[in-house]
Amino acid sequence: MSETTRSERDLAYFDAARSADVVNARMGPDILPRMREVMTIIVTHLHAAVKEARLTTEEWMAGIEFLTKTGQMCSDWRQEFILLSDVLGVSMLVDALNHDRPEGSTENTVLGPFYVEDAPRYENGTNICLDGKGEPLVVRGRVTDNEGHPVVGATVDVWATNDDGFYDVQQKGIQPDYNLRGVFTTDARGEYWFRTAKPRFYPIPDDGTVGKLLAALGRHPNRAAHLHFIVKAPGYDTVVTHIFTPDCQYLAEDTVFGVKHSLIADFRKVDDAAEADKLGFNAPFWAVDRNFVLARNEDVGRNRRAAGR
Amino acid sequence: MSETTRSERDLAYFDAARSADVVNARMGPDILPRMREVMTIIVTHLHAAVKEARLTTEEWMAGIEFLTKTGQMCSDWRQEFILLSDVLGVSMLVDALNHDRPEGSTENTVLGPFYVEDAPRYENGTNICLDGKGEPLVVRGRVTDNEGHPVVGATVDVWATNDDGFYDVQQKGIQPDYNLRGVFTTDARGEYWFRTAKPRFYPIPDDGTVGKLLAALGRHPNRAAHLHFIVKAPGYDTVVTHIFTPDCQYLAEDTVFGVKHSLIADFRKVDDAAEADKLGFNAPFWAVDRNFVLARNEDVGRNRRAAGR
Ligand SMILES: [Fe+2]
Ligand SMILES: [Fe+2]
Repeated sequence: MSETTRSERDLAYFDAARSADVVNARMGPDILPRMREVMTIIVTHLHAAVKEARLTTEEWMAGIEFLTKTGQMCSDWRQEFILLSDVLGVSMLVDALNHDRPEGSTENTVLGPFYVEDAPRYENGTNICLDGKGEPLVVRGRVTDNEGHPVVGATVDVWATNDDGFYDVQQKGIQPDYNLRGVFTTDARGEYWFRTAKPRFYPIPDDGTVGKLLAALGRHPNRAAHLHFIVKAPGYDTVVTHIFTPDCQYLAEDTVFGVKHSLIADFRKVDDAAEADKLGFNAPFWAVDRNFVLARNEDVGRNRRAAGR
Repeated sequence: MSETTRSERDLAYFDAARSADVVNARMGPDILPRMREVMTIIVTHLHAAVKEARLTTEEWMAGIEFLTKTGQMCSDWRQEFILLSDVLGVSMLVDALNHDRPEGSTENTVLGPFYVEDAPRYENGTNICLDGKGEPLVVRGRVTDNEGHPVVGATVDVWATNDDGFYDVQQKGIQPDYNLRGVFTTDARGEYWFRTAKPRFYPIPDDGTVGKLLAALGRHPNRAAHLHFIVKAPGYDTVVTHIFTPDCQYLAEDTVFGVKHSLIADFRKVDDAAEADKLGFNAPFWAVDRNFVLARNEDVGRNRRAAGR
């Protein structure tokens, strides 16, 4: 063994006062630098949190059991740790760190667990509300770059719950397949439009550990009413976002912190029988205009670049 | 709704710069104060760690998968999250925070996963090495209080791996039941003694996520050679500890950070045929004298008391 300094020897045995340093000093010399960097930060904050909270043995054990049950709740169709990350605001934070777009670009929000890859491609104007529930809504907008030039052929992938607050995939056999889902394409002017139903709030799955945690924190499980969008085009940073209705009672309390000021849209109630008739709706109906501004990939700040890697 | 201040309104929507505050502001008014305190600390450090590491989306997903698999590795006989807590030094830290004993008291270390409640009670002097493997060892000592008075009738519960590095419960049907386990009782002078085998290092279970993490950190899975002890008597803070051999190659690298200076014992090699004969050993054999000093419950600092609760 090579000679060690007194400081290195001191870090061989456990020392509550320097516990994180003791743990971090144990890493080997030949590991990935990024592994060393991330784990040093995690261990340092983990020990600091335990000390600051002066965690009791019983609380520590409750934490072990919570994490264990959270893992055991996960399956092919349920990811309770992502749900935990969502309700603790970590998912939104990671997204923000990884998509630092130029001023004026459309902002991201959470993807959520109910996206499906193979939704049908439709002509603009198609009504994706297949069960006829809810108040009719027309969504119209334009996709541009940061200079206002139209992005032609961008795909606009949308999905939402039905008026009972469930996604089609949560109610297979009850809702029509692909209810309230569809992929549209912007035309020569960068424009898209489709018909659907006005979204409503709904609870995230709260029958697991995350639901118990929310209850213990005095929080409800509801997401503010929203439509999901993924807007993408080659060369641009894919936008994963929502539009929120301004009148939802949970707008200021979205349980996964998905709301940003810029994502609240202007939903107008239109009481015009002629307009309704043109859309195949009964009056009154709802209308929202929503443009998306895509940032070029090379203009987006990302962690790896920011960290100089 | 009651009127809100501008600051409260600002915390309604996600804000990367103040993300932990946004999450913590969401807790309800009527929750347990300790829940509020602990979760505020956890969320604050979690967000700080994510920001400091500038975690990428892929790293976040790798973390989600690691936690998920760690939970799914847990079963009635395997607790991978406790193992994770152990190798990150958190178990030792929680123990230190909860057993702040007067100077001179025996220190705690990790319990480990292989303790069994119902080991046989033996007369002092019994040889608990039932498979005859390893180098013979005699352990002798005294249990006292902080003033040096003997603690009569204290139980001294011991367990260790055999010379192949496995606990009996890891090798049911291969090792004799209760191999290297026994509960002794201190006599009128506070003394106990028993015969066993000199302990050797062994790896913690490393076929799960924790083993993968250790490999990525350039760390081995080995625990420094030790005997486990639980020493207890009514009115005293139960001591959960080890004694370590001074000559183990992993003494300065125990993978769960269980080693403390005060727990390294003086194992003497005795090459005396007459002494060996008296113990039913062949010379040479090993001998270690180990006293335990118990602190009265009321003299031990605990978190709840320290926090004024
Ligand atoms: Fe949603
Ligand atoms: Fe052990």
